[in-house]
Amino acid sequence: MAGAEEVQSKSGVKMRVWEILDVAKPGDTLSKAFDIFILSLIFLNVVAVILGSVKEIEDRFAPGFYWFEVFSVVVFSIEYLGRVWSCVSRKEYSNPVTGRLSFISKPLSVIDLLAVLPFYLSFVGADLRFIRALRLFRIFRIAKLGRYSASVRLLGRVIKNKKEELVITVMVMVLLVVLASSFMYMAENEAQPDKFPDIPTAMWWSIVTLTTVGYGDVFPVTMLGKFFAGLIAILGIGMFALPTGIIGASFVEEIHRHKSGNMVCPHCGKEIG
Amino acid sequence: MAGAEEVQSKSGVKMRVWEILDVAKPGDTLSKAFDIFILSLIFLNVVAVILGSVKEIEDRFAPGFYWFEVFSVVVFSIEYLGRVWSCVSRKEYSNPVTGRLSFISKPLSVIDLLAVLPFYLSFVGADLRFIRALRLFRIFRIAKLGRYSASVRLLGRVIKNKKEELVITVMVMVLLVVLASSFMYMAENEAQPDKFPDIPTAMWWSIVTLTTVGYGDVFPVTMLGKFFAGLIAILGIGMFALPTGIIGASFVEEIHRHKSGNMVCPHCGKEIG
Amino acid sequence: MAGAEEVQSKSGVKMRVWEILDVAKPGDTLSKAFDIFILSLIFLNVVAVILGSVKEIEDRFAPGFYWFEVFSVVVFSIEYLGRVWSCVSRKEYSNPVTGRLSFISKPLSVIDLLAVLPFYLSFVGADLRFIRALRLFRIFRIAKLGRYSASVRLLGRVIKNKKEELVITVMVMVLLVVLASSFMYMAENEAQPDKFPDIPTAMWWSIVTLTTVGYGDVFPVTMLGKFFAGLIAILGIGMFALPTGIIGASFVEEIHRHKSGNMVCPHCGKEIG
Amino acid sequence: MAGAEEVQSKSGVKMRVWEILDVAKPGDTLSKAFDIFILSLIFLNVVAVILGSVKEIEDRFAPGFYWFEVFSVVVFSIEYLGRVWSCVSRKEYSNPVTGRLSFISKPLSVIDLLAVLPFYLSFVGADLRFIRALRLFRIFRIAKLGRYSASVRLLGRVIKNKKEELVITVMVMVLLVVLASSFMYMAENEAQPDKFPDIPTAMWWSIVTLTTVGYGDVFPVTMLGKFFAGLIAILGIGMFALPTGIIGASFVEEIHRHKSGNMVCPHCGKEIG
Repeated sequence: MAGAEEVQSKSGVKMRVWEILDVAKPGDTLSKAFDIFILSLIFLNVVAVILGSVKEIEDRFAPGFYWFEVFSVVVFSIEYLGRVWSCVSRKEYSNPVTGRLSFISKPLSVIDLLAVLPFYLSFVGADLRFIRALRLFRIFRIAKLGRYSASVRLLGRVIKNKKEELVITVMVMVLLVVLASSFMYMAENEAQPDKFPDIPTAMWWSIVTLTTVGYGDVFPVTMLGKFFAGLIAILGIGMFALPTGIIGASFVEEIHRHKSGNMVCPHCGKEIG
Repeated sequence: MAGAEEVQSKSGVKMRVWEILDVAKPGDTLSKAFDIFILSLIFLNVVAVILGSVKEIEDRFAPGFYWFEVFSVVVFSIEYLGRVWSCVSRKEYSNPVTGRLSFISKPLSVIDLLAVLPFYLSFVGADLRFIRALRLFRIFRIAKLGRYSASVRLLGRVIKNKKEELVITVMVMVLLVVLASSFMYMAENEAQPDKFPDIPTAMWWSIVTLTTVGYGDVFPVTMLGKFFAGLIAILGIGMFALPTGIIGASFVEEIHRHKSGNMVCPHCGKEIG
Repeated sequence: MAGAEEVQSKSGVKMRVWEILDVAKPGDTLSKAFDIFILSLIFLNVVAVILGSVKEIEDRFAPGFYWFEVFSVVVFSIEYLGRVWSCVSRKEYSNPVTGRLSFISKPLSVIDLLAVLPFYLSFVGADLRFIRALRLFRIFRIAKLGRYSASVRLLGRVIKNKKEELVITVMVMVLLVVLASSFMYMAENEAQPDKFPDIPTAMWWSIVTLTTVGYGDVFPVTMLGKFFAGLIAILGIGMFALPTGIIGASFVEEIHRHKSGNMVCPHCGKEIG
Repeated sequence: MAGAEEVQSKSGVKMRVWEILDVAKPGDTLSKAFDIFILSLIFLNVVAVILGSVKEIEDRFAPGFYWFEVFSVVVFSIEYLGRVWSCVSRKEYSNPVTGRLSFISKPLSVIDLLAVLPFYLSFVGADLRFIRALRLFRIFRIAKLGRYSASVRLLGRVIKNKKEELVITVMVMVLLVVLASSFMYMAENEAQPDKFPDIPTAMWWSIVTLTTVGYGDVFPVTMLGKFFAGLIAILGIGMFALPTGIIGASFVEEIHRHKSGNMVCPHCGKEIG
């Protein structure tokens, strides 16, 4: 009986741990406080990665950056292990083995793991360059925000809603880039063999032009090239601006729905999902 | 009794002064004339700041600019003091002390104060650079237009209506800039240590690219950098164009509402949706 | 009686001349033929101005260009005089003097006059530069298309419909340019005195940036300048893209109305203008 | 009788061949497999053209590219001949001569022919440059995708729906480019005779500016030129962005129609406008 109680209390602890680690329910101050702590830590980590890239700052505060990193990894590791340990208190992950495995393979859990893994790997890897790259991967800790941010979730929903449209426009964009690059390669290869040596390199020109960024590092110099470029710009820019229009419309729609509640059927007066 | 009458007449004067200083009610020609006078003075001040920055013009008409500045500050100071003195004639600021303080702390009053303060401060400050900066702050007298301009008020309403959407897009934009800068720093730091020395500097590239301005002072030269840049441009530009779409939609909506109320069928006189 | 008949026949001739010169009514083949002739002549004139600017072509075909110009001016002059002579056959210009004057002062008539005037003036003017400028003014013969082009008329209607919105955005754009230029002058004047010598010159940077053209001839180099520029770009580009959105929406609307006939009131079923 | 049977069986074969070559109907696995085979071949051809333009890759895998090309041409030729042979099994092309001619002159058939013709022509042509150009024309095999791609068909429908609007905007765009180029030629010809030697060359500047690409290879340097350029940019960019808005709106509309038919209220089952 004592064992059963113990099990129950242990499962009660797990449930509480889960609640604290998860996004806070209204009124749960402890969980709320923990959320704010983790959010601040993520924010400070991003700031640390940004500032740590500045040589003078890194040189001056190297130990500070190091111990802050150790502290962050410890906290994020405990958070991750805590989640894996306590997830079985949720019905969907109740099985200690398969439930946990299915929890671990969730995108948000993978992000949590990736947020700490580079630190541990840096002790394994021997190559300095590799370690340096790993350090920069810390910027992806920003992805942990996904759990808390309503904006990111909204954006995800918006993109999902218009998946079909976006896939079509992306396909058209790829076609356009391929055709534009081939044309410009044809027209400019002889005049500027260093700028348009082959079609893959010409794609850089295509993307810079079709997005209207236009750095000016590559541009046509022949009459034919300028003619093609003008035509491509006029016809193609519209295609590249389409995703913006589509996402924008869906965005406004989605927030509108969120704000104003649901539509009402004019025939029977009931709400429609 | 004479005292009471005096008080009353004094309060009548205050009310009239307030009316004249405030945006004119239809039919109040004196107040209208004063509005036009102040508007012209603001406009001329902006012109003076712009032209005064041209060395040849400044050198030639220095005394003219100086006396126009003195005249403007005197007028704006009198206007400001007049408003503070007469505001007690309004119910909401009726208390001579607390009412006045609450009036002084209104945004438009602060702007009125900031429009004249630099002039007086320039006598205090000893540093020449400081005085020069103060002189340029005169350009903010343009903000005094806010009181008169329906366009600025409309724009303010438009931005307020879509606050939620704008906050979300700004957050996504910040995330994007941080991620794009980190990626490009990773890819280009070795090849162009002067252009991408650290992440904060790389942010300049991110903003110039994501807004599609593309000056061409910074651009990737490595294969990896170009690949990242292309991807970032294609995916990110849409996010940076979102606010435009959102504000544009709200703008058209707001003016529509302003203009038409609801439409009325000219045949039966009933309102239509 | 013969006089009256003569008058009548003369007025009949005028009416016919007017019909021929004016845009053709359906079925009037002579007038239609004349329209096509004039349209072709305008088109060829534009082509002639464009090609005539190319030195080699001008040198080789100078006499051809000259006689084509003489021919065009003769035709356009006859057309203009014919319109002025025959306009009295229209009720609104029936008075030979005041009617004609009011016809002459119509925008389209002014354009017709400006299309030929430079040629005659070139005999008067002594200055070679002046004559050269006059020659280029022939490009404005393109404006004569306005009489025939439904697209230009549609565009005019579209802009008129959204006048209020466009005026507001233009005012906001002017404010933005003034503020952006003042800020950048403040930030960059010392570091780049040749690029940002005064506020009017800095306006070139503002416009090139806010329209996202970004040639790269002027850009900030100081930290403060880059910070301001980034902020201005992010906040301002939206304002500069607004007119596009507004005109675009009105455009689609206007064509929709044109295509689909009129709206029907849901209460009484009658059409609404 | 045996002859009639033979004819019938031959016509049955033709019908089956047609079905296999054409886009597969649901459930027809053989036809589906053939579609996937052709699609993959088109895709690989595009990849081959792109990679084949890179000198190192071409040099190393020249024989591979050559035999892949031969294989592709054989397959596409058989496909083309098979279509021409079997098209008579369709009612609309039932006549062996006129039916086949009308089939051959369909756009998609012309594309199929153009996809293989360059290969055969390369044996005829003697000029090496001509052969090189022909090789690049292989990129147009991408157009064969048109038969299979729903995205391309959708895009075609979208453009067709808004033909009227697009024709109008293209006309306005041409007018704008002509006027902008003439103005800039006037303003900048003297200061930069190499950049603005004539109006046709100035058109390159106009297009690069009005599309907001802004490479920075050509830009005004005179005061007047900058003033014109600023005005042209502010007024013209809107016109150049119109097609995007128009196509975008039509795009969203068309997909919406495709997806939802009319909405149905889930409570009462009636359609909602």
